[in-house]
Formats: sequence, C-alpha cells, structure tokens
Amino acid sequence: MTAPAMTSPLGDADKAATGAALNRVLADLIDLSLVGKQAHWTLVGRGFRSLHLQLDEVVDAVRIHADDVAERAVTIGVTPDGRAKTVAAESALPEHPTGWAQDTDVIDYFVSALGTAIGRLREAIAETEKHDVVSQDLLIGITAALEKHLWMFQAER
Amino acid sequence: MTAPAMTSPLGDADKAATGAALNRVLADLIDLSLVGKQAHWTLVGRGFRSLHLQLDEVVDAVRIHADDVAERAVTIGVTPDGRAKTVAAESALPEHPTGWAQDTDVIDYFVSALGTAIGRLREAIAETEKHDVVSQDLLIGITAALEKHLWMFQAER
Amino acid sequence: MTAPAMTSPLGDADKAATGAALNRVLADLIDLSLVGKQAHWTLVGRGFRSLHLQLDEVVDAVRIHADDVAERAVTIGVTPDGRAKTVAAESALPEHPTGWAQDTDVIDYFVSALGTAIGRLREAIAETEKHDVVSQDLLIGITAALEKHLWMFQAER
Amino acid sequence: MTAPAMTSPLGDADKAATGAALNRVLADLIDLSLVGKQAHWTLVGRGFRSLHLQLDEVVDAVRIHADDVAERAVTIGVTPDGRAKTVAAESALPEHPTGWAQDTDVIDYFVSALGTAIGRLREAIAETEKHDVVSQDLLIGITAALEKHLWMFQAER
Amino acid sequence: MTAPAMTSPLGDADKAATGAALNRVLADLIDLSLVGKQAHWTLVGRGFRSLHLQLDEVVDAVRIHADDVAERAVTIGVTPDGRAKTVAAESALPEHPTGWAQDTDVIDYFVSALGTAIGRLREAIAETEKHDVVSQDLLIGITAALEKHLWMFQAER
Amino acid sequence: MTAPAMTSPLGDADKAATGAALNRVLADLIDLSLVGKQAHWTLVGRGFRSLHLQLDEVVDAVRIHADDVAERAVTIGVTPDGRAKTVAAESALPEHPTGWAQDTDVIDYFVSALGTAIGRLREAIAETEKHDVVSQDLLIGITAALEKHLWMFQAER
Amino acid sequence: MTAPAMTSPLGDADKAATGAALNRVLADLIDLSLVGKQAHWTLVGRGFRSLHLQLDEVVDAVRIHADDVAERAVTIGVTPDGRAKTVAAESALPEHPTGWAQDTDVIDYFVSALGTAIGRLREAIAETEKHDVVSQDLLIGITAALEKHLWMFQAER
Amino acid sequence: MTAPAMTSPLGDADKAATGAALNRVLADLIDLSLVGKQAHWTLVGRGFRSLHLQLDEVVDAVRIHADDVAERAVTIGVTPDGRAKTVAAESALPEHPTGWAQDTDVIDYFVSALGTAIGRLREAIAETEKHDVVSQDLLIGITAALEKHLWMFQAER
Amino acid sequence: MTAPAMTSPLGDADKAATGAALNRVLADLIDLSLVGKQAHWTLVGRGFRSLHLQLDEVVDAVRIHADDVAERAVTIGVTPDGRAKTVAAESALPEHPTGWAQDTDVIDYFVSALGTAIGRLREAIAETEKHDVVSQDLLIGITAALEKHLWMFQAER
Amino acid sequence: MTAPAMTSPLGDADKAATGAALNRVLADLIDLSLVGKQAHWTLVGRGFRSLHLQLDEVVDAVRIHADDVAERAVTIGVTPDGRAKTVAAESALPEHPTGWAQDTDVIDYFVSALGTAIGRLREAIAETEKHDVVSQDLLIGITAALEKHLWMFQAER
Amino acid sequence: MTAPAMTSPLGDADKAATGAALNRVLADLIDLSLVGKQAHWTLVGRGFRSLHLQLDEVVDAVRIHADDVAERAVTIGVTPDGRAKTVAAESALPEHPTGWAQDTDVIDYFVSALGTAIGRLREAIAETEKHDVVSQDLLIGITAALEKHLWMFQAER
Amino acid sequence: MTAPAMTSPLGDADKAATGAALNRVLADLIDLSLVGKQAHWTLVGRGFRSLHLQLDEVVDAVRIHADDVAERAVTIGVTPDGRAKTVAAESALPEHPTGWAQDTDVIDYFVSALGTAIGRLREAIAETEKHDVVSQDLLIGITAALEKHLWMFQAER
Repeated sequence: MTAPAMTSPLGDADKAATGAALNRVLADLIDLSLVGKQAHWTLVGRGFRSLHLQLDEVVDAVRIHADDVAERAVTIGVTPDGRAKTVAAESALPEHPTGWAQDTDVIDYFVSALGTAIGRLREAIAETEKHDVVSQDLLIGITAALEKHLWMFQAER
Repeated sequence: MTAPAMTSPLGDADKAATGAALNRVLADLIDLSLVGKQAHWTLVGRGFRSLHLQLDEVVDAVRIHADDVAERAVTIGVTPDGRAKTVAAESALPEHPTGWAQDTDVIDYFVSALGTAIGRLREAIAETEKHDVVSQDLLIGITAALEKHLWMFQAER
Repeated sequence: MTAPAMTSPLGDADKAATGAALNRVLADLIDLSLVGKQAHWTLVGRGFRSLHLQLDEVVDAVRIHADDVAERAVTIGVTPDGRAKTVAAESALPEHPTGWAQDTDVIDYFVSALGTAIGRLREAIAETEKHDVVSQDLLIGITAALEKHLWMFQAER
Repeated sequence: MTAPAMTSPLGDADKAATGAALNRVLADLIDLSLVGKQAHWTLVGRGFRSLHLQLDEVVDAVRIHADDVAERAVTIGVTPDGRAKTVAAESALPEHPTGWAQDTDVIDYFVSALGTAIGRLREAIAETEKHDVVSQDLLIGITAALEKHLWMFQAER
Repeated sequence: MTAPAMTSPLGDADKAATGAALNRVLADLIDLSLVGKQAHWTLVGRGFRSLHLQLDEVVDAVRIHADDVAERAVTIGVTPDGRAKTVAAESALPEHPTGWAQDTDVIDYFVSALGTAIGRLREAIAETEKHDVVSQDLLIGITAALEKHLWMFQAER
Repeated sequence: MTAPAMTSPLGDADKAATGAALNRVLADLIDLSLVGKQAHWTLVGRGFRSLHLQLDEVVDAVRIHADDVAERAVTIGVTPDGRAKTVAAESALPEHPTGWAQDTDVIDYFVSALGTAIGRLREAIAETEKHDVVSQDLLIGITAALEKHLWMFQAER
Repeated sequence: MTAPAMTSPLGDADKAATGAALNRVLADLIDLSLVGKQAHWTLVGRGFRSLHLQLDEVVDAVRIHADDVAERAVTIGVTPDGRAKTVAAESALPEHPTGWAQDTDVIDYFVSALGTAIGRLREAIAETEKHDVVSQDLLIGITAALEKHLWMFQAER
Repeated sequence: MTAPAMTSPLGDADKAATGAALNRVLADLIDLSLVGKQAHWTLVGRGFRSLHLQLDEVVDAVRIHADDVAERAVTIGVTPDGRAKTVAAESALPEHPTGWAQDTDVIDYFVSALGTAIGRLREAIAETEKHDVVSQDLLIGITAALEKHLWMFQAER
Repeated sequence: MTAPAMTSPLGDADKAATGAALNRVLADLIDLSLVGKQAHWTLVGRGFRSLHLQLDEVVDAVRIHADDVAERAVTIGVTPDGRAKTVAAESALPEHPTGWAQDTDVIDYFVSALGTAIGRLREAIAETEKHDVVSQDLLIGITAALEKHLWMFQAER
Repeated sequence: MTAPAMTSPLGDADKAATGAALNRVLADLIDLSLVGKQAHWTLVGRGFRSLHLQLDEVVDAVRIHADDVAERAVTIGVTPDGRAKTVAAESALPEHPTGWAQDTDVIDYFVSALGTAIGRLREAIAETEKHDVVSQDLLIGITAALEKHLWMFQAER
Repeated sequence: MTAPAMTSPLGDADKAATGAALNRVLADLIDLSLVGKQAHWTLVGRGFRSLHLQLDEVVDAVRIHADDVAERAVTIGVTPDGRAKTVAAESALPEHPTGWAQDTDVIDYFVSALGTAIGRLREAIAETEKHDVVSQDLLIGITAALEKHLWMFQAER
Repeated sequence: MTAPAMTSPLGDADKAATGAALNRVLADLIDLSLVGKQAHWTLVGRGFRSLHLQLDEVVDAVRIHADDVAERAVTIGVTPDGRAKTVAAESALPEHPTGWAQDTDVIDYFVSALGTAIGRLREAIAETEKHDVVSQDLLIGITAALEKHLWMFQAER
C-alpha cells in the first residue's frame, strides 16, 4: 500500500539513520526472545529449574524491549520488520543448536549472545546520539538491562 | 549433545507421531505471534486503535499456546524447535507484507492466517486422537481459542 | 439483514447439528440464571443466608457458561437466541413458582432443574461428538460444573 | 406457600405503589441485560470490537441495577418477578431482531430501548416520591447511569 | 476549650436541627455496632456460623455509617458525641441480654433493633428535608442499607 | 460543526437551565483542581508535607467531580466548556497568588475558595430541583464532599 | 437462656481468673476505640490532619485487639460483655471531654489513656501467667502494640 | 449412617466403575502430597533451595487435583476415602525413606513416584472412557499436569 | 543416607525432647487435615454448605501449622515424619467413619478430635518450656488457633 | 510573601534558563490535559468510544508529566505557574473549538496540538542540555511519550 | 539535645538492662542486612541465582527485625544506635571478605554469622525474661526466624 | 578468592573510573539509608509523625538506589563494597548525633546530608559521561530523586 502521510518529529536524514539502527536492534531482540524460549524448553542438567525460570525472565523483559524499539521506529515514521524471515536473516546472534541443551552450554550460549547484542546496542547508542536523543535514551535503558542479564549469566559459570 | 535418558509416557510410535504434530502446530503459533506484533506496529487506518489492542490480545494468548505446545513436546520426550529459521521454513501461514498495513487488509490477513492455523490444528487433533489423548485435549483447547479469534476478525469485516 | 459471509470451521451438516445442540443448551442456561436470581430474591427460611449466597455463585457461574455457549455458536457461524421470549419458550426447566420461596422448596426445585439441564447437556455431548469435538469439550466442562452444583443441593437435603 | 410475616418499613398503600413501580422497572432492566447479550453475540460490522465491549459494560451495569431493584422490592415486602416469561410479557422494550445484527442497527436499537427504559424510570421516580424516598433515590441513581449510556450510543451515530 | 471559628454551610437554625438529628442517629448506629459484636461473640446454636459472619458484615457497614454521620455533623459545625456513656444513655435500641445468645433469639433481637433504628432514621429524613438536603441524602443511603439488613434477618426466621 | 441530533431526556427549558447550572459548577471545579496543584507545588512551611498530600487528595477528588458534571451536561444534550480561557473567565474562585505559598495562607485560601464553590453549588442544587432531579442528586453528592474538605481546612487553622 | 455445654480447655479456677482478666481488658479496649473516634471527629488545631489519620490507625488496631480478646474469652467458655453500658461502667480510662478537642490536649489525653490501659494489661499478663499461657501470649502482643502507640504520642509532645 | 438418597448422573455400573477408578487415583494423589512435603522438609544437598520450592509447587497442585477427584466421586454418588490409613494401604507409590533426604535421591524418587501415578491415571482414563467422559476429562487434565512435573524432575537429573 | 553435619541451636537432650514433642504434634495435625477433607467431601445434611466451607478453613489453617511444626523440627536438627503410614500409626485422633457423614455427627467428631489434639499440644507446651522456648512459642500459637476452632464447633451444637 | 531560603542544586544562570524552559512546557502540558478532557466530553461520530477512551489515556499521562515538570521546577528553586489564566496566556497550543466535536476533527486537532507541544519540548531539550542534564532527562522522557501519542493519532487518520 | 520527658512502661533497672540487650541485637541485625547485600552483589558460582535470591529474602526479613528491635527500644525509652560506625564497632559477626565471593564460601559465612547472631539473641532472651516479657516475646520471634534461615543454609552445604 | 573471568562491557580505563565513581556514591547512599532509619527512630517533636513517615519513604527509595548502583558496579566487573566499616570510612555525609533528635534538627541535618550526597552525585555524572553513558543515565535518575527529597526538606523549614 501507499505510505500514509506520517509526519516525523525528525528530519529525513536523522529519521533514516535512526530507523536503520532501531531495525538492527529489533532483529537481535526478537531473536533473543526466540532462543530464550528454545533454551527454556530444551534445557537439561542439574541447574535446570533455576535456569528455566531465569530464561523466562529474560524473555519477558526482552519482548517488552523489542516492542518499545519497534514502536519507537513507527513513532519516527519508519516501519519495523519483525517477521521470522527477517529476524532469521538480520539477527547477529550465534545460531542456537537443536535438540537437548545442557545447562552449562546454555549459560555459555547466552554469555555469547548477550555480548553480541550489547555490542550492537552500544554502536546504536553512538549512532543515534547525533540523530535522535530520544531514541538514544531508549537504547541506553535497554543496554543497561541486557548488561545486567549478562552479569548474571557470567556469575553462574 | 547426547540425548538424556528421558523416559516418555508414550511408546515410540505414539511419541514420534505426536511430537511431529506438536512441532507443526508450534511453528504456526510462533509465526502467528510474530505477524501479530508486525501488524500491531505497522497498522494504519480509522480502525487503528481497536485493532492495535485486539492484535496484542491475540499475541498474548498465542504466546501462551505456543509455550504449552512446546512444553507438551518435551513432556513426551521430543525437543521442539522454535527458532526463527525453523519458524520461517515450517510455518504454513501466508507471508505478511512489509511496510504500512491498512486496517482492512490486516483483518483479511488474519482471517486467512487463522483459517490456515486452525486447519492444521484440526488435522493434529485427528492425528493425536489415536496416539495421545492428553496432547489432543491441549490442541482442542487451543483450537477453540483460535476459532473464537477468527469469529471476531470475520465479524469486523 | 442479510447474513454476512461467515466461513465456518465446520461443514454445513456439522454446523447445523452442533448449532442446534448449543442453542438448546443456551436456553436452559439462561433460564437457570434467571430462576437462580428469582430464588435468591424471594427466599425465606432458616437456611436463608447460606442458600442466598450459594444461589449467587450458581448464577455467576451459569452466566459465564451461557456466554461461552453462545460465543461458541457464533464461532461456528450459527446465531444464538437468548431473548426472554425464546428462553421462555425453549427452556426445558420446570416452572419456578411466584411469591415467597421456602428454603427447602428451593433446594428441591434446583435438584430437579439441574437434573433436567444435565440430561440435556449429556444428550448434547453425545450429539456433538460426531460433529465437533471442540464444542463437545466445552459442553463436558459445563456438565462437570453443573453436576457439582447438583451434588451440593442434594447434600443439603 | 403462605406469605411469611414480613413487616415492611412502609404502610400498605405506599408499599403497593412502590412495589408495582419497582416491578415494572425490573422487567425492563432484565430485558435490557438479555438483549445486551444478544447484540453482544450476533453483532457484525466495522465497529464490532468496540461495540462488543461496550455492550458488555452495559450488561454488567444493568445486572447490578436489576439486582438492586429486586432486592429493594423484597426489602419493602413485595416479591419481585424476574422470570423469563414475566420479562417477555412485561418489558416495554422494542423487540430485538433475530440473526446477525449490523453495528449501526444495534446502536439505533439501544438508543430506542434505553429511551424507553428511561421514560419508565422517570415515571417511577415521580411515582415513588410520594411513597418512598429511599426507593426513589435508588431509581434516580439508575436513571443517571442509563442516561449516560444513552448519551454514548447517541454520540456514536 | 473555646469553640473554634468554624463557619457552617448552614444557618443557625438549620444547623441546630440537623445536628440534633445526626446525633440521635449516631447514638443508635454506634450502639448497633456494639450489640452486633456482642451477639457475634456470644452466639450459640445450629445457625452459629452463618449468623456469626452476617453480624460482622452488619458491624462493618454500620461502623462506616456512624463515621459518615459523625463527620457530617462536624462538617456542619456541630460536635458529635460517640462516647460509651452517651451511647448508653441516648440509644433507642432495646437492651441486649448478657451471657450466651441463642441464634433464634439473636435474629429476633436484630429485627427489633433494626426496626427501631430505621424508625428514627425515617424521622431524621423527614426532619432534615427542610434544613439540609445534603445531610438528608446521607441518611437516605443509610436507611436503604439498614432496611436491606432488616429484610435478611426477617427472611431467616 | 453542526450540532448532532442529540435527543435529551429533558425538555428544552429544563435542559437550558440545568445545562447553565452545570457549566457554572464546572468552571469552579476545574479551577479548584488547578489552584490545588498550584498550592501543592509552591507550598512552604512547617505543615508542608501534610498539606502537600492533602491538596493532592482534593485535586484527585475534584477532577472526578468535574468529569461527572461535564458528562452529565453532555448526557442532557448540552456541551460543557472546560478550556483554560473559559475557566479563567467563568470561575468564581478568588485569584491564587504567584510564587511561594506559606502553609497558613494556603489553608486560608482554600477555606475561602471552597466556601465560594459550595455557595455556587447550593444555588445550583436549588435551581436544578425544579428542572432535573438526576442532576440535582449529582450536585448534592459533590457538595457533601466539598463541605467535608472545607471542615478539614477549617479544623487545621 | 441456659448456658450451653461448653467444655473449656481450662479448669474452673483458671477459667474464672482468666475470664475476669480478659473482660477487664475488653472494657478498656472498646472504650479506647470509642474515644479514638471521638477525638478523630472533634479534633482541631495545626496538627489536625496528621493526628486525624493517626487516631484512625489506633482505632483500627484496637478494634482487632478487642475482637481477639473477646473471642479468647468465649474460647475458654466465658461470655464477654462489650455493651455500651458495661464499657461505660467498667473502663478505667479517663473521661474524654465533649465538644471540640485541641490537638495538644488530644495527645495528652491519649498518653494518659494508653498509660492506664497498659497498666491494666501488664497486671493481666502477670495474672494469666499462672492460669493460661495462651491467653497471656495474646495479651503480651496487645501490650507491645499499645506501648508502641504510646511512644508515638509521647514523641509528638 | 444410612446412605442418603443421592441420585447420580450415571447408571449403577458406570457409577461403580468410575467411582473405583477415582478412589484409586485419590489414594495416589494424597500420598504424593504427603511425600512431597516429607521431602520438602528433610531435603539436604546443593540443590536444596530450588528443589524445596519445586516440591511445594507440586504439593500445592496435587492437593487441588486430589480435591477435584474426591469431589467428582461424591458428585457421581460415591464416597471417597482419603484417610491416612486408607492412603497408606491403597497408594501404589514407592515408600519414601525416613531421615535426611539427599537432593539427587529425591529427584530419583519423584521420577519413580510420578511415573507410577501417571501409569495408574492412564489406566483410569482408559477405564472411564466407556463409563463417564466427564470424569475422564478431569483425569486427562491431571495427567497432563503430572506428566509436566515428571519432565521437570527428569530434566534435572 | 548418613546424617549431614547439622549443628543444632539446642543441646542434645533439649533437641531430643523437643523433637519428640514436635513429631507427636505433627502426626495429629496432618491427620486433622486429612479427616477435615474427608468430612468436607462426604458431608450431608441441612448444614452442608456452611460446614463444608468451615472444614476447608480448618484444613487450610492446619496445613500451615503442620508445615511450621515440621520446619521447626528440622530447624533444631530433627527429621519430622509426615508419611501416611506414620500418621496412621502415631495420630491420637479418633478414627473417622467411612461413607456419608451426617452434619451433626461431623460437628461431634471435630469437637472430640480437636479436644484430643489440644490436649497433646498443651502437654507439648509444658514439655518444651524447659527445653526450647522458641518451639514453645510456636506451639502456643497453634493451640490458640485450634482452641478457637473448638469453640466454633461447640457453639454450633 | 518573601521567597524562602531555598538553595538550588544549580547556579543562578542555569536555574533561570532551566526554570523558564520548564514553565513553558508546563503551560502546554496543562493545556493539553484540559483540551483532552474537552474533546473527551464533546466528541461525536462513529469513532466516539475508541477516541473517548484514548483521550482519557492521554489526559492521565499528561497530568503526570505536568506534575513532574512543575515539581522539577520547584526542586531547582523556581516556582511554576499552572493557574488557568497563565495557561490561557502562555500555552502555544491551537485553540480548541466550542460545542460538539466531530471525531475526525478531533484527530486532526490533536495531531496539530501534539506537534506544537513536541516542538517546544525539543527546544527545551536543546536548551537544558547546557544548563541541567537532570531536567533534560525528564524532558526527553516526556517527549518520547508525546511522540508516541502523536504516532497513534496520525495512524488513525 | 536534652532527653524529652519520655515515661517508660518499665522501671529504671528493667529499662537499662532491656535497652542494652536490644541495642546489642540491633547491631548484629543491621550488620547482617549489610553483609547479606554485600554477598548478594559479589556472589559467583553455579549456585549464583538461587543464593542471590535467598540472600535478598534474608535481607528483607532482617531489615524488618532490626526496625522492630529499634522501635521496641524507643518504646521503652532507650535510644537505639544504628549508625554505620556503631554497627562496625558493636556487631559480633565475623568480617565479610572483599571482592568476589564464591557460592560455597558464602554459605559457610552465613552459617557462621547466623550462628553468632542466634547465640547473642538467646542470651538476650534469657536476659529480658526477668526484665520485660514483651521485649522477650519479640526476640523469641526473631530467633525462630533466624534459626530457620540457618537450617536452610546448613541444608545447602 | 581468584577473580572470575568476568568480561566487562567497558575497557579497562573506563571500567576503573566508572567503578570508583559508583563505589563513592554507594557509600553515601548506604549511609543515607542508615541515618534515615536512625532519625526515623529517635525523632521527637510536634512534627514527629509526618517526618517519621517521610524518613521511611526516603530510606525505601535510597535502598533501591544503592542496590542499583552496586549492581551496576558488578555489571561492569567491579566489586562494590557496602560493609559497615567501609561505609563508616568512605561516606561523605556529616555525622548524625546520638540520642533523641528534635524534628527541626532532623530537617536541617537532611538538608545538609542530601546536599552533600547530591554534590558527589553531580561529580560522578560529570565523570561517567566520558566513560559510560549507561552508568551516567542511572546516576542522573538517582540525582533527580534525591534533589526532589531535598526540595521537600527545604520546604518544611
């Protein structure tokens, strides 16, 4: 369909740069919510119950972050893309293995995956500073939350 | 990793058939939650607010259904696969368009997508009856919920 | 008005048989909610307070059952009819007397009325098994609830 | 059964006049709750979801009003009659059509039905002023609520 | 202490008449809360549990009514008097017996006590109509509540 | 825009008189909510915290009263006017000073402002009695609430 | 009526001594709840709002203490007496003045009244130690609570 | 005492077979709740806290299942037997050891005990299918829940 | 397994005596929860509903008491034993009959059963005073609660 | 009155510039809350109910934003001015028309009004960056929220 | 400042001895809350998440205990001292190491620290028995809670 | 113990500078929570109750801020130190006096203590801007909260 007459609070260049940054972050966050559930289900090992609950907390938080990022994109006049195909193509996270997942491997996987997502978020924070401080403020908050999750997975090793 | 010694409440043939049916349903349900959010974000038109809220109710419900289906799979000793790549490959739902989504088109899309998902669920109900009535009972409950959502989208046209 | 193009998850014969069964149950359930209130108001006797509260619990539960049955009917493409005139004509429940209602008579009345409603529900369960297992599952749940209410009224005699 | 020795806070004439007024209002209110649900279920059209929710709010409120009116009747020693047959015979509301209900028709129906019910309530307010100010106060509160619902249906046309 | 410079929304005569009416009602209401507790504690008989709970509901409601009446009195510039000695002297309720209280006697007592309190409330409604409609409106609401409690005790006999 | 075909439950003269009374009250109530916040913010003195909290309770209550009054106006077919310019012009409240507000001065201000608002409300009660008892009942309830606030400010002096 | 065959967990002498102690405490506690409300209503002065709220917390707590004490009495087979006349006669609290109550006087009054009640409680603790440790434990808890209230009133002087 | 005239919704043979199946399940479920608590208390080992909490969730769920099963039995006119002596005699669960319980042993015990209980439930599902689909539906739901608990204990090994 | 190195806050003799007292109380409390449910299910008679609800309150409270007692035992280094076989052997409560239970018989049963349990608790209070005041304090609280339940059953006769 | 000795966390120039920016934003926000209510009341058209609810959400959010801005002003030692007269004079929002408001016009109005308010907020963000990052952070959060509301109104056109 | 005229419910010697005991306990409890947080933050190891949560439960409980102890001290007229310097000087707990804390070391630390605190509490229980049973009762409750925490840490080793 | 392999989202220099800033703030915040409680307990004077409650709000908020700061430190790989000895040594707050605390002195103390803490926070904001914007954002939020508390204490003088 034809794009509606959405006036953006940003100029064209700021909007394009910010929108691109937000869409990159969105792909990582949705992917994080999907692999979080995948590990929540297929987990085995002595640390099962604690990790099973922890992963659901990560998923719940990340779903809200993804929603906030996508809604910020439309707010500045850029359509987000959160479909499975796009997430599979654009996410920077390492691939999650199939089948049963040993608890220690799951911890290692999320240390790695969160590290990757945080790296891309910190790039987006630097990028948006010059284009839209409102979007930047949102990304700072999400980074703080993911870094806290990263601490916890690291502390469990 | 090596599969752990998970004893299943089902025999091997029942387990394989039920597990396959549950995994097919899982792909559709996760996809439904992703396109539900996609439309929730990119929606435009006079019916925006009402549909925006309705889609979030669908997403919230479908996420719980997907979790129940995946946990039933592990319960019978079969690992579910809910990763973006698998969902993109295995979901039977029609592709959701990119960009802005007109409210009337969104209604049409979900009438079609829900119809497809319900069709696959009813096949899975028939299939699981002879293999595992416990799984079948779960699928009946999910079908009832999706059919109710389908009524509502149809009534809005 | 002209019937809208509601596609049903059921074929025509299944839809007709299931819809008829649901509408029969609906009339009984709405009637049960009305006589429940009638007795709640006009009750007298030593057991007043306890029965007054119990009847409201029955009414609250039955209103939800009626809503579920009617919404299942529209979900399969059949319009329910829950108007006073239709309920008065189609309900199978015994007529509730006017004026003050002695507590022991109220208990006897509901033992009889619930017995009638349960009989019609069990017929509908048998009928819907061959037409729509999703509707059948709903009716089984409602029967379980009404049979529990019947036990309690019987235990009080 | 024989009427119990219920002493009324009102004299005989006040009790008879007030009781009659309350019973007329009761029939309208119960009917309103039944047609509210009927429209809630059979509704179709672009305004489906919003109206579907609005009708349930009306039904919830009106059920409480009906309960208050019936309990005020017994409080003054008069038995209310809220059975389906009596409601069908005594309600002044226009008949609600069967089958699917177009959203615009539903709005028109409730503008008309609420107007009728309010007219009868205002007569009852005038009537009870000379017989029982406590009942009158209850009817004034219900009138305020129904008139607010009427405004909303009118504003939607 | 010297009376503070409290300006009243009422003139002197209206204030005196309304204040006197409110103080009469206050004594009855506090007494009702005390005898309600007395019966709640000393009750025996087959109806113990149901009546024990019902009396606490009466006490909870009456304490709020008493607070509303006393605060209305100070609002119009008149000091209420709710001390034990004053309540013992000014309440019109029949004296509650000491020792164990048989359930049927308790019901009879409260039918009588509520009847007395309602009679004084209806006099206060008539009295305040010409002096302060705001106070009258409060008394009408309390009367409605006490008359409903009276119905329930009567229905239990 | 052209006025819509809003049928009123009142005749033309009753509607005009009631609408005018409601609009006068509305201006005072919105003004009261604005000066309540103004004092809540600019307050200084030993009684700061207690008064700061009390003013917010007044503002919360008065905002609900203003909403009820405005919605009653539209319910009878009259448009309310609650815009800043209209409130500034039509409110009868004394002007609130700028800058810091000493706690004792704030108490004096609200004794005066509430007195003014109550005076206009009592006039509106007298006026609406002959035109619309439903509106009158609403105004009586608001008067009771404001008079209670007035008592509390007076008691604090 | 004849005393019912209530078997007590205590022997006759323990029951008589404990029952008497509990009834003395009960009179003080009910009186405290009544004078608490009296001061809550008639209070004036700069500390009005804070003290008005504090007194209601005292009343709420003391009502629960009184209920616990009276129910402990019936539990050991002794009927409590909490009627206005008995409270007026048996309470050891100083008489509360009529009319408006200055905030500083109210604080002094409750320092005195709580001191009196605590003195009687500590006597009852000593008395019940040799007769019923279960009752003693209840009285210790109530004493702790009243002593905490006493601290707060003292700190405010 | 003589059995009361409890009419059952089932015929005699269906009632006997269903009642026997329900009573067998009841013994296992009550036993499961008792050994769940026993392990919750006597547990030691590195997995203490997680397992301590998990066992309480199992106990909470199983108590509700036991209540549902027993109430279904009385609903069809059969008295359940949930006394300690009967549970000790009729439960099929393996005996729980006395003294301190090592965490790994507890997990093994519950894998075994849940497996036993599920086996008996699946037999009861097969048995009740021909006698009472309402009871069968209840047992299917309980089986789904216990099988999910079994997965979790297995995943922790 | 070998007992873990649990250091107790008590010396050996105090620990042994206190542990034995707690285990005796535990058997009675678990038995009370089981017969409470047994009567809750099999009850018949005019007092059915009230007693059915009351028994569930007893069961809920007693389950928490049993948990507290067992956890106090492990806290002092003694393993509790709450298995069905042990409860059947060690409980001092009278045997509960099988089959339907008439309401009046149920009341008599619980007067007797609670009396027995309270007797054993009071012995345990005397015993623990010299060994562990912390355990004694717990037992005093449980005794107070059971004695209150005993009053209520006695009052209902 | 004389300004109290309020020490500010900011120097004089920072305080003056920040205070001025905050007061400009405050006028717009209070005006937004008033016109939000005005439209909430006077709205007509097919989109009535949805927009009526949406406007209340805007008003609720904006009232909190206004409170935060005003309290930030006093926190830095500057008195805010939120009186009707000041709002009428200082707000930059377009004037809201009187009388009935068509739904489509209301959407256009709020697209325009929110755009204006956001423009002024972004100026204040730029201004406060050099004077007070704490105030700037508050304004960024408010801007994010208003821009999200703006998206929603735009999407509905 | 000069000590205010605080009358104590205790005589001088009882007050001094009880106050000293309470202040010793207070130092330990505040220290326990600080080291609980310290370990909550610096924890590493496989048991991280479970222990991280458990420590916060300990901290939450201990903060309330400390508040109760300090408020009991002021209640008897003795000022508590809970400042960092005093806690550092008076606490009997072993010193908590700096830097990262291995999970097994943390468990050992709290077994030791809780043991120390309990020892001092049991001394205070013995001491206060002769001076103030109300304070003693508070200390018994805190001891019970800390001993339960000690069990849990011991069970985890 | 050996430091675990905690990878930080920051480089070494940024981590060291940010960690030092966070630890300085942590000492002040914990100290603020301890002196807040100290004053909450030892307070006397006419403003007792209001200030007693206000101080608890400050303590509750500051405890959360301290937790956030400490967890941010571990998140970047630096261990926080919140032990009593460290807080006593590193906090910049003025020493709180022992004994009873007059209300006016308490207000002055917290104006001074909050001013000190805010000064150190604003230094940390400036410091972290160049090292870690995520930590800076957290410190800005805490500063906003403490400055608001400072306003309130200043306004009370």
